[in-house]
Amino acid sequence: MILVLDSDATEEQIQGVLARVEALGMQAHLSRGTYRTIVGVIGDERKLQETPLEAIPGVARVIAVMDPYKLASREAHPQPSVVNVSGVKIGGGNLGMIAGPCAVESAERMESIAKAVKAAGANILRGGACKPRTSPYAVQGHGEEGLKILRDTGDRHGLPIVTEVMDPRKVELVAEYADMIQIGARNMQNFVLLTEVGRTKKPVLLKRGMSATIKDLLMSAEYILSQGNPDVVLCERGVKGFDSFTRNLYDVAAVPAIKGLSHLPIIVDPSHATGKPDLIGPCALAGVAAGADGVHIEVHDRPDEALSDGEQALLPERYAEVMRQIRRVAEAVGKAMV
Amino acid sequence: MILVLDSDATEEQIQGVLARVEALGMQAHLSRGTYRTIVGVIGDERKLQETPLEAIPGVARVIAVMDPYKLASREAHPQPSVVNVSGVKIGGGNLGMIAGPCAVESAERMESIAKAVKAAGANILRGGACKPRTSPYAVQGHGEEGLKILRDTGDRHGLPIVTEVMDPRKVELVAEYADMIQIGARNMQNFVLLTEVGRTKKPVLLKRGMSATIKDLLMSAEYILSQGNPDVVLCERGVKGFDSFTRNLYDVAAVPAIKGLSHLPIIVDPSHATGKPDLIGPCALAGVAAGADGVHIEVHDRPDEALSDGEQALLPERYAEVMRQIRRVAEAVGKAMV
Amino acid sequence: MILVLDSDATEEQIQGVLARVEALGMQAHLSRGTYRTIVGVIGDERKLQETPLEAIPGVARVIAVMDPYKLASREAHPQPSVVNVSGVKIGGGNLGMIAGPCAVESAERMESIAKAVKAAGANILRGGACKPRTSPYAVQGHGEEGLKILRDTGDRHGLPIVTEVMDPRKVELVAEYADMIQIGARNMQNFVLLTEVGRTKKPVLLKRGMSATIKDLLMSAEYILSQGNPDVVLCERGVKGFDSFTRNLYDVAAVPAIKGLSHLPIIVDPSHATGKPDLIGPCALAGVAAGADGVHIEVHDRPDEALSDGEQALLPERYAEVMRQIRRVAEAVGKAMV
Amino acid sequence: MILVLDSDATEEQIQGVLARVEALGMQAHLSRGTYRTIVGVIGDERKLQETPLEAIPGVARVIAVMDPYKLASREAHPQPSVVNVSGVKIGGGNLGMIAGPCAVESAERMESIAKAVKAAGANILRGGACKPRTSPYAVQGHGEEGLKILRDTGDRHGLPIVTEVMDPRKVELVAEYADMIQIGARNMQNFVLLTEVGRTKKPVLLKRGMSATIKDLLMSAEYILSQGNPDVVLCERGVKGFDSFTRNLYDVAAVPAIKGLSHLPIIVDPSHATGKPDLIGPCALAGVAAGADGVHIEVHDRPDEALSDGEQALLPERYAEVMRQIRRVAEAVGKAMV
Repeated sequence: MILVLDSDATEEQIQGVLARVEALGMQAHLSRGTYRTIVGVIGDERKLQETPLEAIPGVARVIAVMDPYKLASREAHPQPSVVNVSGVKIGGGNLGMIAGPCAVESAERMESIAKAVKAAGANILRGGACKPRTSPYAVQGHGEEGLKILRDTGDRHGLPIVTEVMDPRKVELVAEYADMIQIGARNMQNFVLLTEVGRTKKPVLLKRGMSATIKDLLMSAEYILSQGNPDVVLCERGVKGFDSFTRNLYDVAAVPAIKGLSHLPIIVDPSHATGKPDLIGPCALAGVAAGADGVHIEVHDRPDEALSDGEQALLPERYAEVMRQIRRVAEAVGKAMV
Repeated sequence: MILVLDSDATEEQIQGVLARVEALGMQAHLSRGTYRTIVGVIGDERKLQETPLEAIPGVARVIAVMDPYKLASREAHPQPSVVNVSGVKIGGGNLGMIAGPCAVESAERMESIAKAVKAAGANILRGGACKPRTSPYAVQGHGEEGLKILRDTGDRHGLPIVTEVMDPRKVELVAEYADMIQIGARNMQNFVLLTEVGRTKKPVLLKRGMSATIKDLLMSAEYILSQGNPDVVLCERGVKGFDSFTRNLYDVAAVPAIKGLSHLPIIVDPSHATGKPDLIGPCALAGVAAGADGVHIEVHDRPDEALSDGEQALLPERYAEVMRQIRRVAEAVGKAMV
Repeated sequence: MILVLDSDATEEQIQGVLARVEALGMQAHLSRGTYRTIVGVIGDERKLQETPLEAIPGVARVIAVMDPYKLASREAHPQPSVVNVSGVKIGGGNLGMIAGPCAVESAERMESIAKAVKAAGANILRGGACKPRTSPYAVQGHGEEGLKILRDTGDRHGLPIVTEVMDPRKVELVAEYADMIQIGARNMQNFVLLTEVGRTKKPVLLKRGMSATIKDLLMSAEYILSQGNPDVVLCERGVKGFDSFTRNLYDVAAVPAIKGLSHLPIIVDPSHATGKPDLIGPCALAGVAAGADGVHIEVHDRPDEALSDGEQALLPERYAEVMRQIRRVAEAVGKAMV
Repeated sequence: MILVLDSDATEEQIQGVLARVEALGMQAHLSRGTYRTIVGVIGDERKLQETPLEAIPGVARVIAVMDPYKLASREAHPQPSVVNVSGVKIGGGNLGMIAGPCAVESAERMESIAKAVKAAGANILRGGACKPRTSPYAVQGHGEEGLKILRDTGDRHGLPIVTEVMDPRKVELVAEYADMIQIGARNMQNFVLLTEVGRTKKPVLLKRGMSATIKDLLMSAEYILSQGNPDVVLCERGVKGFDSFTRNLYDVAAVPAIKGLSHLPIIVDPSHATGKPDLIGPCALAGVAAGADGVHIEVHDRPDEALSDGEQALLPERYAEVMRQIRRVAEAVGKAMV
């Protein structure tokens, strides 16, 4: 950590800063420049992350030089992690191809969609039983009934299932049914919920928040990891942008950026990132080309009757076509699509 | 609601759209332009908000013309609401002046800060007992012990208290101690938590999420209102921006914008919006001048020893000075600062 | 165009709106809903784009349903355009692979870089002779001397050259030397400059501004096209984002989005989009996978001595490796890399 | 300047960094931490701003500790500057109240608007003769004819005039007519144009670009100052945001932020910042309360017939009301409104 002092910091203030740093158990290393004096703080700066050093008289700016996460960092774990979702591997060259409808609507609907995505090459089935809805008047999902339908459908097609949890009181229930638990973008900094899923033994699909930096995302993963659950898969699904042409701004550069910082697998979700069926295919290919460990796509065979987000779902036949293209790009970048 | 059809929509598709709209219980009104055909949907469009009309073959774009919230809208309640926090009124010309430290640290610290902010004119005391921390390794707050200290200190100084809740399982506990419950920015779309606080009888301070639109904020208020709790105070505290000079981008225009759309009181929080002590005073004045119903400022008398966010806290003497300036600006715009 | 009226618009206002629309040479089509009255404007709405219809008493909101550009639109020109840069084709399945240093520094430097990028498969050489520098104290480029060096080097290696112009008074000079003229991101809405390059016969590389929407970019292309110059190649190079981890936010979804709206070729510039050498390769692959018609990469063999932007340049050997990967991905998506 | 080295930098790389820094004429100060080695660069770091130090092998990150501008900085000029626009002072407690239509349309229109804004207390008249239009098909302004009308109208009412210039070839012409030259937001980084207006003796109104950081804005001011023209007034007019409810995101915190960094006056433009007449008044008050040295408001007496931007113009009577409110707030913060 580096403390840049005020350009007019007094000698007394400088001494005060040094004293304070040492009182905090670190070593201070003073460097007087022509224009600015700086203090290098030697030691594990993570211990100081929440200490308001900028409030020390004479300190103008505090610059962190270490990453604030430990367990999620590549330094702590140089090899890429492989997360095993009931037999389906994600990471280390293995692609997790997650597909299914936004919400679990009925056993019939789920069945026909599962059959289609399985045939197209998906290896994990998704579907929402508890839905985060921006309107209190919108359908909120079928709850446990939905979980049962999803479980049965997955079993019938040999597909592990992933579904979202929003309520810390329901983590146990969801963990009973699901092979993988999803934390949605709006809950990425719901630290209570992160702590609860960290206490389960289930793999977690952690979606990036709409205004989360890459560091924020890795810190949220750290919450889960620090509870003893090592199986976190990150998901880029678009961040807020100024152009409303797409629903969100798909940050594909986050994929290689995260690969440089962390060992955790990262997949992409072009459905939520773009919100436009025509862009989902090209953006899925872009994600795989950039190094993603999987693709999450919403598929629905009756999008105009979907309970939610139908407008961004792919039809099964279009999904199959996209999967054929993904297969070719995956091969070009040396990834296996089983 | 208006449906803009594809420029090459077929007659069959057009008829299909009309049929679908009518099947949904609305009236359809066709308008064929030179370049585009549009369908006006007549009826309460809020019923259709979650229906994926864009997925109907032939529909290019869906344009909502009604606001998606009802209870929060000014149309539903033309007069500005006044929220009563154990005797302190916010809204309708009354300013809620909330001040205190980021976290409740000790009874001694709380006491000296409370005394100072009361003397400066604050009328509600704040302090965090459960803290949302981006790092799992950071101090998480004193929990119930902190609530007790805050309650005692508030009582001693005749100041109602506001504190944050993050866990739906703790809403009841927090409601026992606090006069007003805060929902933090990161939980603005934690719908489970919004529903729980909506079931209490306590006023709620709802902070705007870092990437929430004005409409998103009002929809989150709607969640609380729709549970039967009418006492919601909104809070602008900065949104994500591209310039890291300030911690967030203070959206002061949201104050008059929300006053035009909603009857709910809205206050500003220049501490979190800017993250820089020098900017807090000017931004507080800006908020009041723009019509805010109150100001939330973090105050700490030992900022360099604060458990969190000390770098953005004002010293008590600086707070007192800012309060004197606020008083003058409040008078200039016809607001009462008791 | 659709006019949504105020919810309390009077009958007199409604009639006023109809009269005004008809006075402007359009047909008005009234549709009274339960909650809102809307007026459909029938005719070529582009004529009304700059008419402040929202200022008509009773009008709450104006919604455009047509794209504001004509010549750039896919409707006007359904087949993808192919731009010919002195023999090198961009678009329609042909990839323009542009490479070279940020600035032309010396004939020796240019020579060694040109040789390397040519060997790696680049087909257009870039280099800045006039540089937009955010600091008035920074080196501003070698001007005509630089143009000569670039021209000579290109000729020697059989590579057409592209270079930026910033001053409308220098368009003619630059056009004498260059095969393609670049408009930089900061000048994307310098309409004076767009008009001047539109008057030349040279292909134009139009870079997207840092806060330009897709529509803004196409409108700037329209400026050039409307002057009679049909040869515009668009370039996605990142927009402003809130995460400073990357220099800009690479909007790869803009590639398929623009392909849906326009016939113009679009290439990607992962160097400026990310500002980080490690991310350039993966983001180049992502761009090609998403359908880009080429890739623009900065290459320098002595990056630590570069006059500008050395920190984001690839070394020639790394560039060659990226080009090998691009070739594989290009094949996977059916693109020819000559 | 601080160089943070790679965590695995070799001893040879460390020595190489030290040698390179000294070869650049600076002193290097090595500080070996537990986890990271840092090198403090002692000397005037502005000389190194464009040197790609990050490209030196072993360097992970370069951190600037000095501001990149000199003439614009408060350190260079501790007292606030006062800019004199043909007798009207802006800065140092004096408010520049600029008003007028977006475009100069006709002598009659200009006359009636000038009369009204003068009566309401405006002290500078604005109007566009050359207009930056996003569409090539939109009216581009009346050119010199417009300048004459503006000049005559200003003279008749004793109001200095400000108008925009977009073309470096027209700076001289505009300077003949205008008392103050405006650089629009889209040209804030048109360095050719900045250099030209820097060579005139006319005060410059420099509007902040839509995606310009505070530092970017001050660097653009530096361009003008470095040419010998000390009379620059900055203008906050909103930046790009993710919520389309307002046209731009009004960054009122930029006002006190800039006052801390620079001696230059800064005014606000709530018309362009919000694009909504109802928000202009409250946002003007916010700007003045936050410390702005003036307010720029578009006024039109026939907004629905305006050639451009009529939808965001205030009617003269509404402007007069806003001016009365501004007067009260200005007094409350100790500013003189003559």
